Amino acid sequence: MSDFRDSYGPWALILGASEGLGEAYAREAAQRGLNVALVARRSNEVRAKAEEIATEFGVETRAITADVGAEDLLQVLEATIGDVTVGLVVYNATAGYIGRFLDQDPDYAQTMVDVNCRGPLRIAFHAGTAMKARGRGGIILMSSGAALAGGPGNAVYAAAKAFDLVLGEGLAREFRTFGVDVLSLIGPAIDTPNFWREKPNVEALLGPPVPAAQVAREAFDQLGKSSSWVAGEKYRQGLAGLGRLSREEQISAMEASVAALYGARSGPEDAES
Amino acid sequence: MSDFRDSYGPWALILGASEGLGEAYAREAAQRGLNVALVARRSNEVRAKAEEIATEFGVETRAITADVGAEDLLQVLEATIGDVTVGLVVYNATAGYIGRFLDQDPDYAQTMVDVNCRGPLRIAFHAGTAMKARGRGGIILMSSGAALAGGPGNAVYAAAKAFDLVLGEGLAREFRTFGVDVLSLIGPAIDTPNFWREKPNVEALLGPPVPAAQVAREAFDQLGKSSSWVAGEKYRQGLAGLGRLSREEQISAMEASVAALYGARSGPEDAES
Repeated sequence: MSDFRDSYGPWALILGASEGLGEAYAREAAQRGLNVALVARRSNEVRAKAEEIATEFGVETRAITADVGAEDLLQVLEATIGDVTVGLVVYNATAGYIGRFLDQDPDYAQTMVDVNCRGPLRIAFHAGTAMKARGRGGIILMSSGAALAGGPGNAVYAAAKAFDLVLGEGLAREFRTFGVDVLSLIGPAIDTPNFWREKPNVEALLGPPVPAAQVAREAFDQLGKSSSWVAGEKYRQGLAGLGRLSREEQISAMEASVAALYGARSGPEDAES
Repeated sequence: MSDFRDSYGPWALILGASEGLGEAYAREAAQRGLNVALVARRSNEVRAKAEEIATEFGVETRAITADVGAEDLLQVLEATIGDVTVGLVVYNATAGYIGRFLDQDPDYAQTMVDVNCRGPLRIAFHAGTAMKARGRGGIILMSSGAALAGGPGNAVYAAAKAFDLVLGEGLAREFRTFGVDVLSLIGPAIDTPNFWREKPNVEALLGPPVPAAQVAREAFDQLGKSSSWVAGEKYRQGLAGLGRLSREEQISAMEASVAALYGARSGPEDAES
């Protein structure tokens, strides 16, 4: 894995790393020989994970407590990780809500834009500028299968993940001209604590959720090879067929997925941040 | 056209209405018998258009000077148009930038999120709540063909328009359950002053731009019939084929379009706001 370290080391910065997929990204980066800075809002959780990973993989780690949707994100990162070379950034933080659009708190919907859109934009400028100067590096933005068409019951999250998908794809082509790799990772249903908290009904519709470790592995393997990537073979096949449907049929497919996954549940959820 | 007025009258609110497509929406609404409130940042232009339309169509009009990306948008609207029934809202305001991502002002990129994402979200809550209480109304969000895959040289605009597309599609299905129509309009190259200011090279690639009046007409005709709609027959056919390509091929098609449209031009532009 020294190729990976040469391209994306010595430090990886994982935003939204306290559990689930974020933790899997952190472990996979450590496994590949990178030091890892973990960022999350919950300081106890992120500190525990950082210590665990340092012990288990024999790499340096740092735990950073921050709200990734906040205006001062870059200042916090400068103060906590500005002294080392970050060669890999994974923006895994996300904020979601399942339920009827008008039932949600409008302020929370704007927070979803902050965490899912404004944060990645800030990180892309910050990390992209530093990596361009070095002529190497990698950035992964987390999107979702939900991004591919309108999602009734999931409207703002789907829209925000469409933003991430299309932003990352554009940057992938631009940044590769100066040696920096960008990937939009189209997340499947993932086997994480957050996912199971939602009590979803996914297996009936799509088969078992994809292990978080596999998603992280596929993402790192595709970095520099693809502009966007659907993790999980079954999801990759399923979503590849979506484009052949009319747009209305695609929206109906999304509607059916949200209903099968979450039923009538509504209310805000807050994942990986 | 009294059906249209019954469904979407008596007032239409057009955000981003000082020229081009916004003006065409305002004229088409007046033509269909609605009173029209025009919102734009440039107060002289918006006042002149409001007077012109009142005289020409014999409807009431109002000119509202506002920055649609600002936090106080709803307060401004409440103060200026809160006393009448708005049955139709067109969010046509947009902010774009063509050029390399890292060459742009990061603050301007965040403004693009404010104008293209946060504004529509605010309007969807505000107008959606009022229209739901009445059991009727219509909302049009402006997206773009650029939204359908990553656009190198157009990365943030494409991402923001993907947000609008997917948001509107989700809302279309949710809001129709209580009688409110939402449409994401996928804009083609449109024959507007702003478009020609960009000196693009579109005809060679895609044929002539679509007249703004036709885009407005198609949008109003599709409201209540479709969740999203590509204006212009030629663009509709072209974009329908995009979904059959791989995602990488779609990004390449977008890259070729941006290059053909704008060449090496870069720098911020600010349209319809």
